Amino acid sequence: MEFAAGVWETKDVEFARLWKEEAAGQEAETAGMIHSIRDMGEISFVILRSRQGLLQAVREGAGQQGDLSRLKEGQAVRVRGVLKKEPKAPHGMELRLSDARILSEPAAPLPLPVGKWKMGISLEASLDHRPIALRNLRERAVFKIQEGLCRGFREFLTGQGFTEIHTPKIGARSAEGGANLFKLSYFHHPAVLAQSPQFYKQMMVGVFDRVFEVGPVFRAEKHSTRRHLNEYTSMDFEMGFLDSFYDLCQMETAMLQSMFALLEREYGTELSLLDVRLPKITSIPCLRFDEAKRLVSEACHRPIRSPYDLEPEEEGLIGTYAKETWDSDFVFVTHYPSKKRPFYAMEDPENTQATLSFDLLFRGMEVTTGGQRIHDYGMLMEKLEKRGMDTEGMEEYLDCFRYGMPPHGGLGIGLERLTMQLLSAENIRQASLFPRDMTRLKP
Amino acid sequence: MEFAAGVWETKDVEFARLWKEEAAGQEAETAGMIHSIRDMGEISFVILRSRQGLLQAVREGAGQQGDLSRLKEGQAVRVRGVLKKEPKAPHGMELRLSDARILSEPAAPLPLPVGKWKMGISLEASLDHRPIALRNLRERAVFKIQEGLCRGFREFLTGQGFTEIHTPKIGARSAEGGANLFKLSYFHHPAVLAQSPQFYKQMMVGVFDRVFEVGPVFRAEKHSTRRHLNEYTSMDFEMGFLDSFYDLCQMETAMLQSMFALLEREYGTELSLLDVRLPKITSIPCLRFDEAKRLVSEACHRPIRSPYDLEPEEEGLIGTYAKETWDSDFVFVTHYPSKKRPFYAMEDPENTQATLSFDLLFRGMEVTTGGQRIHDYGMLMEKLEKRGMDTEGMEEYLDCFRYGMPPHGGLGIGLERLTMQLLSAENIRQASLFPRDMTRLKP
Repeated sequence: MEFAAGVWETKDVEFARLWKEEAAGQEAETAGMIHSIRDMGEISFVILRSRQGLLQAVREGAGQQGDLSRLKEGQAVRVRGVLKKEPKAPHGMELRLSDARILSEPAAPLPLPVGKWKMGISLEASLDHRPIALRNLRERAVFKIQEGLCRGFREFLTGQGFTEIHTPKIGARSAEGGANLFKLSYFHHPAVLAQSPQFYKQMMVGVFDRVFEVGPVFRAEKHSTRRHLNEYTSMDFEMGFLDSFYDLCQMETAMLQSMFALLEREYGTELSLLDVRLPKITSIPCLRFDEAKRLVSEACHRPIRSPYDLEPEEEGLIGTYAKETWDSDFVFVTHYPSKKRPFYAMEDPENTQATLSFDLLFRGMEVTTGGQRIHDYGMLMEKLEKRGMDTEGMEEYLDCFRYGMPPHGGLGIGLERLTMQLLSAENIRQASLFPRDMTRLKP
Repeated sequence: MEFAAGVWETKDVEFARLWKEEAAGQEAETAGMIHSIRDMGEISFVILRSRQGLLQAVREGAGQQGDLSRLKEGQAVRVRGVLKKEPKAPHGMELRLSDARILSEPAAPLPLPVGKWKMGISLEASLDHRPIALRNLRERAVFKIQEGLCRGFREFLTGQGFTEIHTPKIGARSAEGGANLFKLSYFHHPAVLAQSPQFYKQMMVGVFDRVFEVGPVFRAEKHSTRRHLNEYTSMDFEMGFLDSFYDLCQMETAMLQSMFALLEREYGTELSLLDVRLPKITSIPCLRFDEAKRLVSEACHRPIRSPYDLEPEEEGLIGTYAKETWDSDFVFVTHYPSKKRPFYAMEDPENTQATLSFDLLFRGMEVTTGGQRIHDYGMLMEKLEKRGMDTEGMEEYLDCFRYGMPPHGGLGIGLERLTMQLLSAENIRQASLFPRDMTRLKP
């Protein structure tokens, strides 16, 4: 009869305890994957990999016995030896091996040079072998930083009294209308995959005042660009009792400051592996949509083409303008035209052609869409009627307004998009663990 | 031109600052939803609701002017007044109103008595009006506690060096075979919704040693029971460099201790609203499957019917046995028969009819399934062949083993199931914000 008492020692893959200065001269045991081996004849450098980084182990002499003589790349091993200061080794410490035990054997040599600083393979090749390619330290660092962004989002909002929710991804109808939805049969009923938690998070504002969700969203858009995915992780929040939509901009600004501070505090290794420069945010300028359009048109001597939305090229130009004018990596573009915003967007009472909404551009690319929502039942019904929209399937959403909702608004951030921009990655697929696009459904 | 400096004051719905003893006698402003009104003639009690609870506001005198005379249930209001100690009011403080501003008007009176302690409506009625029903304090407390469980899961694992991952929910093939999958067309390719992140979390052990994910999973099972949902939130972890599968039991035990400690520390209000008794975990007994079967059969004088799995009734009896024998709300049932475990389950070398796996029962119901996995490529291929399974679509999963994986294992916890058992709820739908079952696809 066994009992699990919850006593747990993380002895194995804690390389960090071996790197401590006072560990030098001591005997130590640890475990890891063999990342690479450099055989120098009389001496071999056996580089072990764990979640914490690389540990240089040294096998001396030729006539080794047992498992120590059979080490090769791709094995999982448990090793023992004496720690010795070595300035050239990672973290200034190496392990002089006295014993090794092979825990697991690969059946074939690695197909990618994961032990190299840069693997020098195409994005396509990397994605085809994704779980292997990610064993490269720089490839995996991307997702450690992504974890930090996600943690920062949650921790900040939890501290601000937001409640985390989990809303269904299969539903009878979508939040924002019928286009670009993945459809499925749900026990012989027509169903769709959620393209956003919009309706749910709004409904939950009536319950918890402030809510957030981090979860997958699904867009059946037939695009093949460097900045779109068909499934991505959306970080959403929604909050009640707004004075104006600028409250949302303030909240997001404070949130980003907090997220980047967390990265700086706890993800230094990964930031330096990828040479990431964290943006310094003191304040973020808010530029009205019309003004932004005009500025870009004037600065680049090009006519305004699509008057209701920003083209990717324009986003880039506005980003450059914000950097040059205010030294800001971020810029809020506010008051988007009603025409391009969903029915629930609150119109500007001073100009109903515009909405009390915004996008946040980060280094010239949209990473957030947000805004104040209509909270008045009559106004919402009027808007639906004006747009000729069918309310079928929206009954419970509309009921929330019928029975009273506070003024509210919120936003959504694409986690992969944010990661991509922070890392100055060329393609969003680099920032998605297992990307889904029109042609990629595996691994 | 505006700038968002990230300065943010949570002045409105912080009832907590008004409840402080030293606030008595001071003028204060706040905002909330009108939860209920008790009109006593000369005086009315206007109960405000925010995320932090209820605030008793008092309107004195009859001839009120302006918005103060028009208060009604379901409105969002901003109010001002003087705080006064009142032992009968929630938190011993009430707000004597001098002014009110109506921020939002309902279009109809609430269809449910959300202001009552117990609403006295059926589960079906509650689910049909879910976002309204959740405005009741006890209904919503369920999901605050659920948030706490989820936070506790993440915070513990983050502290243990686990990396959070986000894996795709649309895929070409499922982790555990072809049954019970929701199917969809993905740009004219056949695709399925993930019934678990199993393959992905295992693959990522080769990258980060320890990973976890909290996300939706989808099961097209045609069941209609009080303990199953067709979409639920799965909390999964997977860890490398195990000595034995008991390491997983230890890790889960420590995790549950940490999760309940967080609830005790930060969710006291909700626990007492729902009269929840937190289980005290010193250690959790581990009972072998065969032994558990035998015990139940003997204790209840009933023959062993299905020898390869536990029936719900048996789970209940084992739970009772664990409570009576060890005073434990939890019990690990270990060494499940190979027959009922997936191909990747590691068999017990001492008895290949059994696996190095377990379920965790909480008050007589399964809340976790876990175990050690096969990490050797040859052994995995042999098992697949023995089961006559097709490896198509598993190429990248199998490649991870071909190129070397550490010994590893992991587990999955159903968040709704765990919440249900903690709250001693009769039906899992009570513990799902917007449940999905065979007949329920909305709201």
